[in-house]
Amino acid sequence: MKIGKYDIEIEEINKESFKETQKRLDNLTKPVGSLGRLEEIAKYVVAITGKKNPVFKNKVIITMAGDHGVVEEKVSAYPKEVTPQMVYNFLRGGAGINVLARHIGAKVIVVDMGVAVDLEKHPGLIIKKINYGTKNFVKEPAMTREEAIKSIEAGIDIVLNEKDIDIVGTGDMGIGNTTPSSAITAVFTKQKVEIVTGRGTGINDKIFENKIKVIKKALKVNKPDYKDPIDVLSKVGGFEIGGITGVILGGAIKRVPIVIDGFISGAAALIAVHLFPKVKEYLFASHKSQERGHRFILEHLGLKPILDLNLRLGEGTGAALAINIIEASVKILNEMATFDSAKVSKKSI
Amino acid sequence: MKIGKYDIEIEEINKESFKETQKRLDNLTKPVGSLGRLEEIAKYVVAITGKKNPVFKNKVIITMAGDHGVVEEKVSAYPKEVTPQMVYNFLRGGAGINVLARHIGAKVIVVDMGVAVDLEKHPGLIIKKINYGTKNFVKEPAMTREEAIKSIEAGIDIVLNEKDIDIVGTGDMGIGNTTPSSAITAVFTKQKVEIVTGRGTGINDKIFENKIKVIKKALKVNKPDYKDPIDVLSKVGGFEIGGITGVILGGAIKRVPIVIDGFISGAAALIAVHLFPKVKEYLFASHKSQERGHRFILEHLGLKPILDLNLRLGEGTGAALAINIIEASVKILNEMATFDSAKVSKKSI
Repeated sequence: MKIGKYDIEIEEINKESFKETQKRLDNLTKPVGSLGRLEEIAKYVVAITGKKNPVFKNKVIITMAGDHGVVEEKVSAYPKEVTPQMVYNFLRGGAGINVLARHIGAKVIVVDMGVAVDLEKHPGLIIKKINYGTKNFVKEPAMTREEAIKSIEAGIDIVLNEKDIDIVGTGDMGIGNTTPSSAITAVFTKQKVEIVTGRGTGINDKIFENKIKVIKKALKVNKPDYKDPIDVLSKVGGFEIGGITGVILGGAIKRVPIVIDGFISGAAALIAVHLFPKVKEYLFASHKSQERGHRFILEHLGLKPILDLNLRLGEGTGAALAINIIEASVKILNEMATFDSAKVSKKSI
Repeated sequence: MKIGKYDIEIEEINKESFKETQKRLDNLTKPVGSLGRLEEIAKYVVAITGKKNPVFKNKVIITMAGDHGVVEEKVSAYPKEVTPQMVYNFLRGGAGINVLARHIGAKVIVVDMGVAVDLEKHPGLIIKKINYGTKNFVKEPAMTREEAIKSIEAGIDIVLNEKDIDIVGTGDMGIGNTTPSSAITAVFTKQKVEIVTGRGTGINDKIFENKIKVIKKALKVNKPDYKDPIDVLSKVGGFEIGGITGVILGGAIKRVPIVIDGFISGAAALIAVHLFPKVKEYLFASHKSQERGHRFILEHLGLKPILDLNLRLGEGTGAALAINIIEASVKILNEMATFDSAKVSKKSI
């Protein structure tokens, strides 16, 4: 299928390798299966990358920023100015994602996908601005179909242009972006808006009720077609969400494990998987977000979160923590001694 | 209270600091409370250490090994020889705990608490051998009361002698040691033996049924008194379990965060907390083990596990992974920019 300049075909991951990897894991000096999910994760990484001994030398978190016209409906607790302010915070290394990326030894790539103002140039900032924020999707589609495609294309660009990348985490920044994410979740999971809408950065009851009304109205006005994921993205999405969809597709094209952050990245994953179902096998759900719609995304995608720490910050913070666990799993596979090499006796009964 | 040469008093952690730490967390560039459990964990680390900005320069995992006389009742899938074989594996750096400790930048201290054979000297091995394995506690107490006290004392020694230690994880190695751990768990949680006994390293139905019978008989023969934790340890415990109890007490004496591994470390924590209830606040439960009795320990201690990855390896592997998360939480507190310093606007509504 063509998306912009890319003619995309996603390969199946090599599930046939599961058996051989499990055999190798069973030969390591530990009771069979005793490392639980670490073993499961290691098997997937081998199947995704096609490498018997994957090493995460280059860990990358791509944090995409965009603004949302729907913020004028008063759906967020924070003013819109916070989007560019936080981008500068990312570039100075002071945000949550910077701290956690340093902690796990990952690089953060910050992308302006559609911040409403022009940002100062910075060596750490990639500008892929599709437009100066989306339109208010209560009144009209958030973006044109062409812009939706461009946003996905931009995400793919970034992953394909990044020469060395062994694992990629997704992240987002965009005041108001739980609103489009809830709309997208409602469309694909077919759950009621009330059920998949949460309190984002921490809104009060009044704003929360308004947020639900706004999303319902947006779906009624725009009628996004769940069978056409680009239609959904263009009508009720966001530029950073489209960008993350592209990052996910780029990761799958490159056969790199993709670590999905929380709710906003989850919404982007819904679009990616509905475009290319085979992408699902490349995904790791980093954590279960406190944002209530998130669990419906995870269920819909059939993904089991690695962590459950009540996070709801976004930026890629959950992805960073989970990458560390995924890296632990491949180190187990690569570095542990076997029963033979360590001269340890096997099960006697 | 006196335990061997130590006259122990455990200080309350400084819970009054919670409010101030939360205030500092709320000033960081993120929505209030959006880092969920990371924030909660950071608050505890501050309250435990008394340091406003705790730094984990020296992370230590103490892995204690011991043998169990009850193994002659055929309760384990592995032969007893595996205990010393795995100790050598630890010393060569090939075991699961070595891989995960390297991954998080921690040092592993390996202790012979009561392996049934004499081990070769090694600079990485501390020998605190209380005896050559415990007695078969179906027939008689596992150890004398004096030995129980000595084993705890040895664990305290190790922590107090370790000059630089900012956080400590516990770990165990001992073929057969889920059997004493289930017995201890049954005594303190007052749950039925059937409910708190699991399949350890992976035993079949026949051995599993026998294991339950053995534990029931041991409790009947020895009548451990839950009001006297040293009595419980001596009658149905193990030398590495007593050692871990000592590590926990040593950590609390030193006001260091203590990260409890899985089921065996949990049993040791039951003894420590029943000796000194204030110890509980110094503990982090690293993960929820696949071993079924573990959840009753966590409930009894009122601890919420940080991870849930279906692990059941022991050695300190769960503790290692959780230490990484705990370290992330203090880095958040230490390194994130504040709203003021980053010039980010606060909540507008």
